[in-house]
Amino acid sequence: MTRVSVLITNIGELVTNAPQDAVSVASPGPFCAVNDAALVIEDGLVAWVGPAAQAPAADELTDAAGRAVLPGFVDSHAHLVFAGERGAEFAARMAGLPYSAGGIRSTVAATRAASDGQLRAGLARLAAELAAQGTTTFECKSGYGLTVADEARSVALAAEVTPEVTYLGAHVVPAEYESDVAGYLDLVCGPMLAACAPFARWVDVFCERGAFGADEAAAVLAAGEAAGLVPRVHANQLGPGPGVQVAVQAGAASADHCTYLTDADVDALASSGGTVATLLPGVEFSTRQPYPDARRLLEAGVTVAIATDCNPGSCFSSSMPLCIALAVREMRMTTQEAVWAATAGGAHALRRTDVGHLGVGARADLVMLDGPTHAYLAYRPGVPLVARVWQGGVALGRE
Amino acid sequence: MTRVSVLITNIGELVTNAPQDAVSVASPGPFCAVNDAALVIEDGLVAWVGPAAQAPAADELTDAAGRAVLPGFVDSHAHLVFAGERGAEFAARMAGLPYSAGGIRSTVAATRAASDGQLRAGLARLAAELAAQGTTTFECKSGYGLTVADEARSVALAAEVTPEVTYLGAHVVPAEYESDVAGYLDLVCGPMLAACAPFARWVDVFCERGAFGADEAAAVLAAGEAAGLVPRVHANQLGPGPGVQVAVQAGAASADHCTYLTDADVDALASSGGTVATLLPGVEFSTRQPYPDARRLLEAGVTVAIATDCNPGSCFSSSMPLCIALAVREMRMTTQEAVWAATAGGAHALRRTDVGHLGVGARADLVMLDGPTHAYLAYRPGVPLVARVWQGGVALGRE
Repeated sequence: MTRVSVLITNIGELVTNAPQDAVSVASPGPFCAVNDAALVIEDGLVAWVGPAAQAPAADELTDAAGRAVLPGFVDSHAHLVFAGERGAEFAARMAGLPYSAGGIRSTVAATRAASDGQLRAGLARLAAELAAQGTTTFECKSGYGLTVADEARSVALAAEVTPEVTYLGAHVVPAEYESDVAGYLDLVCGPMLAACAPFARWVDVFCERGAFGADEAAAVLAAGEAAGLVPRVHANQLGPGPGVQVAVQAGAASADHCTYLTDADVDALASSGGTVATLLPGVEFSTRQPYPDARRLLEAGVTVAIATDCNPGSCFSSSMPLCIALAVREMRMTTQEAVWAATAGGAHALRRTDVGHLGVGARADLVMLDGPTHAYLAYRPGVPLVARVWQGGVALGRE
Repeated sequence: MTRVSVLITNIGELVTNAPQDAVSVASPGPFCAVNDAALVIEDGLVAWVGPAAQAPAADELTDAAGRAVLPGFVDSHAHLVFAGERGAEFAARMAGLPYSAGGIRSTVAATRAASDGQLRAGLARLAAELAAQGTTTFECKSGYGLTVADEARSVALAAEVTPEVTYLGAHVVPAEYESDVAGYLDLVCGPMLAACAPFARWVDVFCERGAFGADEAAAVLAAGEAAGLVPRVHANQLGPGPGVQVAVQAGAASADHCTYLTDADVDALASSGGTVATLLPGVEFSTRQPYPDARRLLEAGVTVAIATDCNPGSCFSSSMPLCIALAVREMRMTTQEAVWAATAGGAHALRRTDVGHLGVGARADLVMLDGPTHAYLAYRPGVPLVARVWQGGVALGRE
């Protein structure tokens, strides 16, 4: 927490995601930006937003020198508790082999074999990497343990670095349960859930051919809900399937991937009232698969988030800036839509009202870019543009 | 220059681009790497390379902790002397408008209007950005002045930051010469060349519909050669055309872009003996155009380089790591081919024997990655993986 008030002034473009005449709204609004702006941080929160010329005095002053300031990125989908790496699998895939969820099992073996200290160190490295790239809120899933003990330590470790912990015992059926899927589901919905629920906020299931079907997924989500967890679903990534419908029916906060959708799926998301479509373009980049049709979702009125899916298999990128550039280049989102989806969209997908926007009262999670507008994230792809980051009002920047 | 010898040990993978049994070769060889390696820097040069277990003593020790070390990237195509920016043009293009070379003129107007100090500051910012991303050698073109005075100051400013300065008076016909192309070519081949040649090593021409035709391009290159400059050519970017043939016939060091090639073009490059095909995938990413067919060129035996083309219009990325990731994802190059093209390939395109490899005697231009192998540049796209950079033996790193 900041003990003193900090005025950041001379902001070329301040993305607030809060209408200018209602900057004290307490949740993310539509994409909004103020030019030649200033912002005051106090007690870890945004205390004032407006034109630089009208800024109040503060204890400390930071000159943005015309650069853009955005809400910190909200990465609502990441798998960060694991050991090992799958660089060879990546190279094979780039040489033409298809992605299959089966590769998950190699990470499961490495994760089970790792010590708590090794897992904690890997997680700390990735958390630092996320922060350096402007991600100030992130979700973290289990799912590479797949035993009661290994899932429980995964969620416990995740809870050390983020409140947005997701129990994903239903990531894939582990090898030892290959011929007893029902037995594994009993474990996932019984003792494994009981061991994990105290550390988690969310329950997730990989509803996909090769993983879990509609009834299985619904059972996992229902069990999780009964234990106090809120559902989210891996849906319709590798082919058409029931994932989105399962998600909407369960009142999930998010259906993630959404590449292969029917009109009924799009309608279900649009009329869901609370199920965000979370798109993960880094996965398509890293697996050379078709990108989801973001325009179709946006035009139907679906709330769209962008996240990394950072994981050692299908996308080992933790870069929200790259995801924004891919959303613009490959999914034809405007720069405004992409930045909104990576901030306010992620907040919606995590049902957070305190992040993803910079209205008065929001958490002072800020990113300052080496560039005058948010559009530079797509205009200058690959360039490390994150000049400075504030998390809860505390500067983490590399300046 | 280092005053003392530095031993970098515990290198997980050391990419040398020099056969292990001939590490003292004085020019880039094929892709080669040594595992569990060490390297000694002395007087700004690579003094020793080999297995860590056999490393000699040195004055200072750096522990790579299993990380990969590569030759510094050689960016053989960049336009860094300019003022202004074209973010709005970028956004329009992403919204569906095609890229046209005409946008160059807006940068010409801004560049002419800028002071020397403004141009120098912009160039310094970009040069620092390149270095931070692991680029230790870069080419820099003029081409946004297009008057004798403005081209001369562009090459003079470029020469302050790199020896690889390219005179590109023949970038586009400026508006004031629209109805007198012959008159502009007289200027380019006459007084403008005379003013620029003392500061430049290379002469380049944009041989493309909407810019300069075959005869015009050949005349520019011949005039440049007569003034002591070595040719390079912007060729076959926007459509089929004579660029590659002009380049090969002029003995150019490089034909750049190479998207629209006939079999005869590929044959000409393969049998040229010295004309590299420089691919610029950041441009295709940023203009949503088709990528060049790298596999066709590689399979024909053409020497392929990768470069950024960093410029405010068609690709405002300075990221060689992104170009490598795009080369793998979009052009189906292997990670080895892509890294070679971004190091040794660039060195060939600049006819440099001292960079692009880490044989004994090479310049100690090194990149240390936050990752165990070169493949991480593609496996972890968008993540700032450059942990530390040495340029001529001097550490620039951010560690």
